Amino acid sequence: MPIGEGRALLYVAGQVSVANGERLTGRCPDEVSVEEAQARARVCALNVLAQIESAAGLENVDQVMQVIGFVLSKDGFGDQPKVINGASDLFVDVLGDAGRHTRIALGANALPFSVTVEVAAVAVVRTR
Amino acid sequence: MPIGEGRALLYVAGQVSVANGERLTGRCPDEVSVEEAQARARVCALNVLAQIESAAGLENVDQVMQVIGFVLSKDGFGDQPKVINGASDLFVDVLGDAGRHTRIALGANALPFSVTVEVAAVAVVRTR
Amino acid sequence: MPIGEGRALLYVAGQVSVANGERLTGRCPDEVSVEEAQARARVCALNVLAQIESAAGLENVDQVMQVIGFVLSKDGFGDQPKVINGASDLFVDVLGDAGRHTRIALGANALPFSVTVEVAAVAVVRTR
Repeated sequence: MPIGEGRALLYVAGQVSVANGERLTGRCPDEVSVEEAQARARVCALNVLAQIESAAGLENVDQVMQVIGFVLSKDGFGDQPKVINGASDLFVDVLGDAGRHTRIALGANALPFSVTVEVAAVAVVRTR
Repeated sequence: MPIGEGRALLYVAGQVSVANGERLTGRCPDEVSVEEAQARARVCALNVLAQIESAAGLENVDQVMQVIGFVLSKDGFGDQPKVINGASDLFVDVLGDAGRHTRIALGANALPFSVTVEVAAVAVVRTR
Repeated sequence: MPIGEGRALLYVAGQVSVANGERLTGRCPDEVSVEEAQARARVCALNVLAQIESAAGLENVDQVMQVIGFVLSKDGFGDQPKVINGASDLFVDVLGDAGRHTRIALGANALPFSVTVEVAAVAVVRTR
């Protein structure tokens, strides 16, 4: 959505942990370890970046504004921030300061196809 | 919120599955089938459209930007995308291309009043 | 993010129920009562306001646009709206009409560090 001054607000749909066409499923931490879930959050972030690249080009990212990350969680699991760091760190690694963002990290008892992680984002991109 | 160029960003509050004043409650898929939950997602979308109509007029929708849908889910249920399609399809049926949107589909173990579905949205509307 | 006309869209990260450095944890309503959870939602809102004050100054809030509140919930619990009212009321008490907002109230089976409530927000702030 254009917001004036040659920039647009880009909403990226929820990206699930899918790599090489295979869904990475299972609940954290009893079926999937925190470390493995973190790697899967990174996969979600890669998929978000691929969406941004396709829609606007990564070189045009002005700022990633918001990242929302959901972790398929056993009742009482509370290390969602550590898991979602796998996504957050990638945004900064790839985009530098433009990859810094506010974040909402949450647990869920059920996610699409029982994937371990789902990440959505909102970014400001340059349009000229 | 005005965003210049005669347009505004309209945030629509989470709309629960309520029809004719009656709350449509119960968990998917053990208490409510996927097909019935899909119909309830459509009801939520109708309530979102009613909010947009009231706030700005459906004829002024420039684009539905983001739809977030939550399905009251049994542990391990993974067909939230199919359920939320009931909402997504209605936005496109009613608004055409302006109804196309990015989406986040999620599960939850608990929702307000134990409704089956809750849908929120962000849209860009014309203000002149 | 500047949106023209001397205003910016401010995304506030998910704020958990932490007071005086102590995390307020536990599930509603079996471990934490609705009334106590409501008080914790108010704490989250205070933390959101502190973030806004730090980023832009509370006197520059044009409008709180959206509040998303998650309540750590026992299966079948449905009083999330009542809990999140603890946050909503504070925004209006502190900011008046500028604190009015659309809202999404949800349940979750797991939240970071097992906090009882997490609240995030989007606000429009004046930048000159």
